[in-house]
Amino acid sequence: MEHAPKAIDVTNDVEMRTFNFFTMGIDGHPFGLHLDMAIPTILNNADEEQRKDWLPKAANREFIATYAQTEMGHGTNLKKLETTATYDPKTQEFVLNSPTITSTKWWPGNLGKSSNYAVVMAQLYTQGKCYGAHPFFVQLRDLNTHKPLKGITVGDIGPKFGLTTTDNGFLQFDHVRTPRRSMFMKHAKVLPDGRYVPPVHDKLNYSTMVFIRAAIVSGMAYHLLVTSTIAVRYSAIRRQGEITPGAGEVKVLDYQTQQHRIFPQIARGLAFRLSGQYIMKLYTQTMDDIRNGDISAVPDLHALSCGLKAVTTHHAALGLEQCRMACGGHGYSQASGFPLHYSVAVGACTYEGENMVMLLQTARHLMKMAKAIRSGQSPKSNKIVDYLFQKGPPKCLIDQAYDTNYRNVLESFEHLARRQTLEVYYKLVQLQQQGRSYEQAWNDCAVELCKASRAHVRTFLARTFVEEIDKVSDLSIKSVLQDLLQLYLYYEVTECATGLLEDGFMTGQQLKYAKKKIYEALEKIRPNAVSIVDSFDFHDRDLHSVLGRRDGNVYENLLKWAQSSPLNKTDVLPFHHKYLGKMMEEARQRSKI
Amino acid sequence: MEHAPKAIDVTNDVEMRTFNFFTMGIDGHPFGLHLDMAIPTILNNADEEQRKDWLPKAANREFIATYAQTEMGHGTNLKKLETTATYDPKTQEFVLNSPTITSTKWWPGNLGKSSNYAVVMAQLYTQGKCYGAHPFFVQLRDLNTHKPLKGITVGDIGPKFGLTTTDNGFLQFDHVRTPRRSMFMKHAKVLPDGRYVPPVHDKLNYSTMVFIRAAIVSGMAYHLLVTSTIAVRYSAIRRQGEITPGAGEVKVLDYQTQQHRIFPQIARGLAFRLSGQYIMKLYTQTMDDIRNGDISAVPDLHALSCGLKAVTTHHAALGLEQCRMACGGHGYSQASGFPLHYSVAVGACTYEGENMVMLLQTARHLMKMAKAIRSGQSPKSNKIVDYLFQKGPPKCLIDQAYDTNYRNVLESFEHLARRQTLEVYYKLVQLQQQGRSYEQAWNDCAVELCKASRAHVRTFLARTFVEEIDKVSDLSIKSVLQDLLQLYLYYEVTECATGLLEDGFMTGQQLKYAKKKIYEALEKIRPNAVSIVDSFDFHDRDLHSVLGRRDGNVYENLLKWAQSSPLNKTDVLPFHHKYLGKMMEEARQRSKI
Repeated sequence: MEHAPKAIDVTNDVEMRTFNFFTMGIDGHPFGLHLDMAIPTILNNADEEQRKDWLPKAANREFIATYAQTEMGHGTNLKKLETTATYDPKTQEFVLNSPTITSTKWWPGNLGKSSNYAVVMAQLYTQGKCYGAHPFFVQLRDLNTHKPLKGITVGDIGPKFGLTTTDNGFLQFDHVRTPRRSMFMKHAKVLPDGRYVPPVHDKLNYSTMVFIRAAIVSGMAYHLLVTSTIAVRYSAIRRQGEITPGAGEVKVLDYQTQQHRIFPQIARGLAFRLSGQYIMKLYTQTMDDIRNGDISAVPDLHALSCGLKAVTTHHAALGLEQCRMACGGHGYSQASGFPLHYSVAVGACTYEGENMVMLLQTARHLMKMAKAIRSGQSPKSNKIVDYLFQKGPPKCLIDQAYDTNYRNVLESFEHLARRQTLEVYYKLVQLQQQGRSYEQAWNDCAVELCKASRAHVRTFLARTFVEEIDKVSDLSIKSVLQDLLQLYLYYEVTECATGLLEDGFMTGQQLKYAKKKIYEALEKIRPNAVSIVDSFDFHDRDLHSVLGRRDGNVYENLLKWAQSSPLNKTDVLPFHHKYLGKMMEEARQRSKI
Repeated sequence: MEHAPKAIDVTNDVEMRTFNFFTMGIDGHPFGLHLDMAIPTILNNADEEQRKDWLPKAANREFIATYAQTEMGHGTNLKKLETTATYDPKTQEFVLNSPTITSTKWWPGNLGKSSNYAVVMAQLYTQGKCYGAHPFFVQLRDLNTHKPLKGITVGDIGPKFGLTTTDNGFLQFDHVRTPRRSMFMKHAKVLPDGRYVPPVHDKLNYSTMVFIRAAIVSGMAYHLLVTSTIAVRYSAIRRQGEITPGAGEVKVLDYQTQQHRIFPQIARGLAFRLSGQYIMKLYTQTMDDIRNGDISAVPDLHALSCGLKAVTTHHAALGLEQCRMACGGHGYSQASGFPLHYSVAVGACTYEGENMVMLLQTARHLMKMAKAIRSGQSPKSNKIVDYLFQKGPPKCLIDQAYDTNYRNVLESFEHLARRQTLEVYYKLVQLQQQGRSYEQAWNDCAVELCKASRAHVRTFLARTFVEEIDKVSDLSIKSVLQDLLQLYLYYEVTECATGLLEDGFMTGQQLKYAKKKIYEALEKIRPNAVSIVDSFDFHDRDLHSVLGRRDGNVYENLLKWAQSSPLNKTDVLPFHHKYLGKMMEEARQRSKI
C-alpha cells in the first residue's frame, strides 16, 4: 500500500479502486474502507482547506478512516437515519448523538477495531431545524492509545457469512462534541453563527453511486470468471462414468449437463465484464459533463446502474453456486475456494443498495419513460432508453437466417422490456383510477415492476455484448467469443421465454430453435473451454483453489491441503480421552459386568 | 444419546432418524454417522451372528463407527471404487488396500477423529475375480490409545463450507488384514475356502437410498420452514420506507416484493413436508412388500425419490438464500442464523447423489415408461407414474371457475411432464436412427431429460399437496392452508410457464390469471403470516437466530450478541500497536519532519 502513489494516481478513484482490487485480496483488509470510501469522500466532499489538511494524512496513513452510514435499524433509507449532529453556535461545535439502539451505526467495514476516524452520516440540526443527512469527519479513538474517545462506544459486530478478515463494526455517540469544520463543506455548509448554506445541486451523490455500482458489475464478472475457471479446470481432470461403454471413464466436462451448468457462467462473466467497463466509461464521461454543468445523462445512467447491480449480483451468486455444485463433494470443501468466493460475492446482492430496492429504482425511471411515451414525447438521443420509444417488429424473427449481429435477438429483448414496461404502467394507471393511491398501486405492481427492470437490464447487457464483440478484429479470438455470445444470447432467450411467448410474440418453434442454438454452442465451446479460462490468465493466488490449480495436480494437493489442517497436528485429539474415549471405555466396562 | 433406547425403538430406522434429528443439532455430531449410517448398515447387512455381536456394542457406544464409501476420485459411481478387499484363504483374512491417491476414502463424517471403526466399501476379490463393491466392518484405531492401527492412515479433510462440527475424514489402507467375518454377510458371502456366494436379489440397496432421500426431503422442509420463520418474524419487526406518505415507516413484510420472496418458501416448505411424509410411508410399505417377496413398487419409488431429492434440495437452497437476502444486511450476519442453515442445507444438493445424476436417474425410468407407452402397454395401478399413460385434456383450463381441488392445475403439470417425457424420448430414438449410440444420444439430450424429471417431480409434489390438504377437517386451519396451496400451485405454474406456453397448451391470458392468483394469495396470507410461522412451533434453539427470536427483541439482542464477540474482549486488539498503530505512528513522525 506504501507503494500505491508510485504505481497509480491515488486521487483518481477508478485507478485507486483497481489498485485496491489487486492488492487487497477478496475478503477485506484493515484499511479497505479507508481507501475505498473515506479517501474518495475527502476527494469529493471536502472543501479546499479540509482537503489540504486531511488528504495528505489520509494518503500517508497517519490515521485509518472508515465510512459510517448504515445504522442498525436503517439501511437503504437515508432519510430515516437517526444519528444526529446538532450545531451549538456557542462553542462552534456539533454534538453527535445516537438517541436509540436502532441508531447505532452498524456494518461499516474496519469500524470495529482498525479505524480511528470515520466519515459519519448524521442528520444535521441547526437553528432548530433538520436539514437531512450530511457527512462529518469524526475522530473515534485516541491516536496514541487507540482507546475509544469519551462518549464513544465502538466494537466489532461479530462473525458473518463471509468477509471474515474485515472488522465490520458498530458505533454509538453519547453527546460527542466535534468542531464545526469537521462537517464536509464542499457542497453544503453551516456558518459559525449556525446558518445553513445548501448545496448548489444534489445530483453528485448519484454519480458516486453509479461509480460504486459499475465497480460491482466488474467485480461480479471477476468472481464468475474465477469460479468458472476453477470449475472448467477441475471438470477436465475429474473422470466419472462412461459415455461409450468400454471406452473408460470420461472427463465430466464431456457431459452436456456439466457444460450447461458451467459455460453460461463464462458467457455471463464476459457480458458483465464488458458492461462493467462500458458503464465505467459512461461514468467518467458523465462526470466530465457534470463539471461542465450538464447533468442530463445522470438519470438514465443512474437508473440503469441500479438494475445492473441487482441483475449481475443475483446472476453471479446463482452462477457461483452452480460452478461449486458442478464440482461435486470437493466443491463443498474450503479447498475448492468456492465457499470463499460465494460468501464474499453474494454480499453484493445486499450492500450498496438491496437488490429489490435497486430494481424498483430502475422501475421508477422506466415508469417516467412510459409516461413520456404515452404523452407522445420523442426519445432522447440516448442509447440506454431510446429503444423504449421505438416500435419494434410485431413478431419475433430469431430463427431467420439473415440475422446478422443478432439484431432479431436484441429486438426480442427490447420487445419484452418495452411491453412489460408499458403493461405495468397501464396497470398502475388503472389501479389509481380504481381509487388506489399511487404508492399503494406501486406496491401492488412491485413484482411486475421488477420484471420490467430485469428486462431493461437484459437488453442493455445483450446489446453491449454484441457491440463489443463486433469490435474485435482478431478473427480467431472473435470466433471463440462469438460462440460464447451465441450461448449467452440464446440462454437469455430461454430464461425470458415465458415473457416472449405469453403475448404470442415468439412461437414454440422459435424457442426450439433457441434451445438448439444453445446445445450447439455448448458443443462448440467444449474443445476450447480449458484454453478459454486459461486465457483469463488468473494467478493461482486469485483462485484460492486446490481444484482450479493451473498445473492440474488436484488430488495430490488435496491430500496435502487436508493433512495440513490443524486438526491433523496430532493423530488423537488432546481431549479425546476426556470425552469420547471415556464414554466408550465406560460402556465396555459396563458390558463386561 | 444415552436415553435413546428409553425414548424410541433404536432398531427402527425411521424412529432413529427422527430422534437424531431432534437431538443432534444441524451441523453434525461426533457419532452422527454411527447412528445414521453404521447402525442401519448393521441392521440391514449383518447376518444373525454378526448382528448379535456388533449391534449391542454399537447401541451401547462401546465403539464409534462411520460409513466410508466415497473416495477422493470417486463419488457417485460405486462401480469405480478403487479400494480393494482381497481374500486370502490361507489366513482366512481380507487384505484391504488403497492402491492410489484417488482411492483414498474421502468425506465420510466422523471418520477424521472420532471413529474407531468403519463400514468400508471395497471391491471384493476372491479366487482371482472381482465381485464388485461390498461392505466390510473394519477396526481403524486402537480401542485404548485411539491411535490408528498399523497400515492405516486417517485424518480430517479440513474446513468446509458448513458442517463445521463434523470431522469429515480421509482414510488409506496399506495392506491391512481383517478377518473373513468382517465382511457383512447377510446378503453376499465369501466361504472360508474363498468361494463367493452371491446375494439373492440386489434391490435392497435401492430401498436404503429411498429411505435416506425421503429423509432429505423432510430435512429440506425443516430448513425452509425454519428460515421462513426467521424471515417472516424479522420482516414484521423491521420498518423501512413509507407506502402511505406521512403514515410512518411500514413493516417490510407489507411490501409485495418481500411477500413474494418469503411466502412461496413457506408454501414449498409445506409441500416438501407433506411429500416427505408420504414418501416415508411408501417406503415403509415397500419394505413390507419386499419382505413378502414383492419388489414391483421399488423402481417407480426409487426413481421418484431421486428426482424429489434433486428438486427439493435445489429449491430449498434457493429459498433459504431468498429468506436471508430478504433480511438485508442483518441476514448476512451469523447472528441471523441463515449462513449456518444455508451452508448445511445446500450440502444436500451434492451428498447422497449429486443432483444432476439424480435427475438423470429419474429420467432413465421415465424413458422406460415412454417406451412402454409407445408399445401400447397399459399403466400399472400406481399413483406415481400412471398419469403418464393417460390422455389429458387438449387445452389448459386453469382459469375455469369449476376447478374444484385444482384438477385443472394438476392436469397442466401432468400435461407438461407427459409431453416433455415423450418429446425427449422421440428425440432419443431419432438420434439413434441417425447413427448415434444410445449413450451418445442420451448425453445429447441430457438437459432436456432433466427437464422431464423436474416436471415429473412437480406433478407429484403438487398432487400430494392437494390431496393432503383435502384431508384436513378443521375448517379454519384448512382455509389458511388453502391460501398457501393456492400460492404454491400458481407459483409453480409461472415457474414452468414456458413449458406450458410453448406448445400452445396454455394461453397468455391463463398465465395472467395464474399471476393474479399469486398476488391475491400473497394478500390473503399477509395478515396470517406471523401466526402461520408461529404455528410451526419452532424453539428459538431450532432457529439459531437473533432476528427470528420468538419474543421479537431483535435490536437489543443484536447488540448484545455483537458485544459478546471474542474480538470485543478488549477495546484495543493486543497486537494493534505492533502493526497498524506502529504504521500510523511512523507516518505521523515522518510528516512532522
